[in-house]
Amino acid sequence: MNIHTIIEKKRDAIELSRKEISFFIEGILNKDISEIQTAGMLMAIYINGMSLDETYNLTHAMVENSQRFDRDHHDNLRVDKHSTGGVGDKVSLMLVPLLASCGLQVPMISGRGLGHTGGTLDKLESIPGFCTNIDFEKAVSQLNDLGAIFLGQSQSMVPADRILYSLRDHISTIRSVPLITSSILSKKIIENIDALVIDIKIGQGAFYKSVAEAGQLVMYLNGVAQKFNIKLKCIFTQMEQPLGYTIGNWLEVTEVVNTLKNKMNNELALISRRLGAELLCLVGESDTINDGISVMDAKILSGDAFNKFLEIVEAQGGDVDYILENKEYKKSRKQLLIKSDVNGYIHHIDALKLGLLSMELGAGRKGINDGIDFGAGLVLHVKTGDYISRGQVIMEVLTDKELDENDLEREARSYIRIEDQYIERLPIILE
Amino acid sequence: MNIHTIIEKKRDAIELSRKEISFFIEGILNKDISEIQTAGMLMAIYINGMSLDETYNLTHAMVENSQRFDRDHHDNLRVDKHSTGGVGDKVSLMLVPLLASCGLQVPMISGRGLGHTGGTLDKLESIPGFCTNIDFEKAVSQLNDLGAIFLGQSQSMVPADRILYSLRDHISTIRSVPLITSSILSKKIIENIDALVIDIKIGQGAFYKSVAEAGQLVMYLNGVAQKFNIKLKCIFTQMEQPLGYTIGNWLEVTEVVNTLKNKMNNELALISRRLGAELLCLVGESDTINDGISVMDAKILSGDAFNKFLEIVEAQGGDVDYILENKEYKKSRKQLLIKSDVNGYIHHIDALKLGLLSMELGAGRKGINDGIDFGAGLVLHVKTGDYISRGQVIMEVLTDKELDENDLEREARSYIRIEDQYIERLPIILE
Repeated sequence: MNIHTIIEKKRDAIELSRKEISFFIEGILNKDISEIQTAGMLMAIYINGMSLDETYNLTHAMVENSQRFDRDHHDNLRVDKHSTGGVGDKVSLMLVPLLASCGLQVPMISGRGLGHTGGTLDKLESIPGFCTNIDFEKAVSQLNDLGAIFLGQSQSMVPADRILYSLRDHISTIRSVPLITSSILSKKIIENIDALVIDIKIGQGAFYKSVAEAGQLVMYLNGVAQKFNIKLKCIFTQMEQPLGYTIGNWLEVTEVVNTLKNKMNNELALISRRLGAELLCLVGESDTINDGISVMDAKILSGDAFNKFLEIVEAQGGDVDYILENKEYKKSRKQLLIKSDVNGYIHHIDALKLGLLSMELGAGRKGINDGIDFGAGLVLHVKTGDYISRGQVIMEVLTDKELDENDLEREARSYIRIEDQYIERLPIILE
Repeated sequence: MNIHTIIEKKRDAIELSRKEISFFIEGILNKDISEIQTAGMLMAIYINGMSLDETYNLTHAMVENSQRFDRDHHDNLRVDKHSTGGVGDKVSLMLVPLLASCGLQVPMISGRGLGHTGGTLDKLESIPGFCTNIDFEKAVSQLNDLGAIFLGQSQSMVPADRILYSLRDHISTIRSVPLITSSILSKKIIENIDALVIDIKIGQGAFYKSVAEAGQLVMYLNGVAQKFNIKLKCIFTQMEQPLGYTIGNWLEVTEVVNTLKNKMNNELALISRRLGAELLCLVGESDTINDGISVMDAKILSGDAFNKFLEIVEAQGGDVDYILENKEYKKSRKQLLIKSDVNGYIHHIDALKLGLLSMELGAGRKGINDGIDFGAGLVLHVKTGDYISRGQVIMEVLTDKELDENDLEREARSYIRIEDQYIERLPIILE
């Protein structure tokens, strides 16, 4: 077996065997296969695709060559959630303590933000002291003690994924169903979970603009997860407008904290409870979605979920007082209140544009090595469907950057469209 | 314009514009585009193809970013020949002096051998002192003085081709019609020629196994050459058995020398005269192929062609006495005579296997950096269609390598199939 015959087969749209795919992944890792050859292979995979079997074998090879979380038969049921990414998506921060307070284990490996989307790790690190780069043994012990941990992907966790992803980014081969499937699932399979829920964001601010576009991905995710004996459910949620009311790292943490403290009627709570309930049903802890939601609501009302969040923050070195005493974050130098200049209904809040704006404000990264201003971002005072009067505040803009206030105000206002006619609220879960 | 949108277009099988292709080639050369991105692009070109316009634009961009041979309107007509490569193919060594002795200019840029095929530069360098790495100004002056030069492709001659070719070799994208077309033609277009003949080898020992397989290449070569105002003719020649009687560098030089000295009834003379006659017709120096052949035969009979060969050898530093005095080359340590063990007709002489065997003997390279034993190789005493008696020598094997004689004899003999029934000679030109 050699890399040339393997590249030739994929180039000519011939299915690769399990052995060939293992050879490819091992060759990447031990550098027998050059980045140039890997790039050629990735383009061939992008154009000619991969069958479900090939995708399973690819995922399998990536997992085989990775550190993994052990599993003991005494352990609690273990679950996780993945999101395809959106603007203001702080669901993981809410869901992990919620599920852990229900007695499930949640070993969540997350990523950082890039471009218009934020990352769970960045949001957590806005809590002073919070560390996501944790020694593997310590991580396992936290998972056993608290039932939850937030972790960055270390060098030894699915190293093949790190290599493939960075090459895919260079050669425009991100949007490949088999490659996305193996990238998502490999990082979850090494967690040794029983069930996984995937939040597939749909809309202008998301990777997929319509449910139909994501159809093949869902089929592959289901097919591969099944072969690994992981119970999987994909849920489509709306990403036309940003999720919830905040975009920006510390701002989103405060929204999570407020929601964990009883605010159950907002978008963040709606999505989190639904995703959590799906997991409770998948592992057999609840019989129906409504039962699952009731279980979680009890954990919010009792304060257990919030306490679990604080336990996790403390265990990972975060400053709990900062959250408990509701300390003000270092004030942004510029804090603009954007007011409506008309009466009317909010017809559209542009998730993509606001994601990009919040990146410009300092809340996100343009390049992988950019720094982040944790306090910067946007606070929405309205959602699509709300009625608004002239002069009412629709948005706050927070930044330390020296940007022209008039330009900023004009830009921010232009991303919220207000019209005379009534419009219904957008559903957040797309059934 | 940026490389990502260009890769995405080709990835999605959308035609690239002239500007985009120029951007790609310039980016490769100034290293704005990484080898990884180039590899992704090459795989996308391989799989999705390129239109004739794209291929022209690619060739154009490669030529634009290259050193070129100037042309003066006083200059003689200028022609060249390209071969897709085979075993024992020494036609260039014969054809260049032949055409130059007819008053045409032939600035031949050639390559080295790899795998089972030999290279014109290696064959010439088997003449002691012969140099193919010549300063550009000296090359131009030799071309003007003698009408001919044999040159290696220097760093400044179509540098984009060098980069693309070495990447293509790594990622199995050699066999792409647009990429082959631009690679062949760019190196000829910078020579500023009037006409080009392309010898497309067909058969077991060649890149193309049938005329049909080479059909698309011929269409692209004709289409692109026409846009550059170069008169082009593709000739298919047979490569089931090796060309002529010798395989190996110095051995092939001696066959060329003998053929230039009056031996006009062998395969080498047949192909060379036909290719030369096609060029004479293309540039209008001859009216018919037979006229062209007569012109060249006169140059062989008069000794002009051979003298031209000696002039070129001398101008490029080669030892003319070595050729004139028919000096024996440093004898190979092992010289085996392979004899037939049966009576019968030669049905098949395996070009590919004999090419690989001669590489093993030291006459060729497995890897691009391997050295060459100029004296090693094979001398055939028979061709397909010949009758042979038991005990008659069918082949000589020459090598300095310590190989087991019995194994070598068995192997060499197995590549020549002898049967009872009469079989016709193979035609060398496939009409």
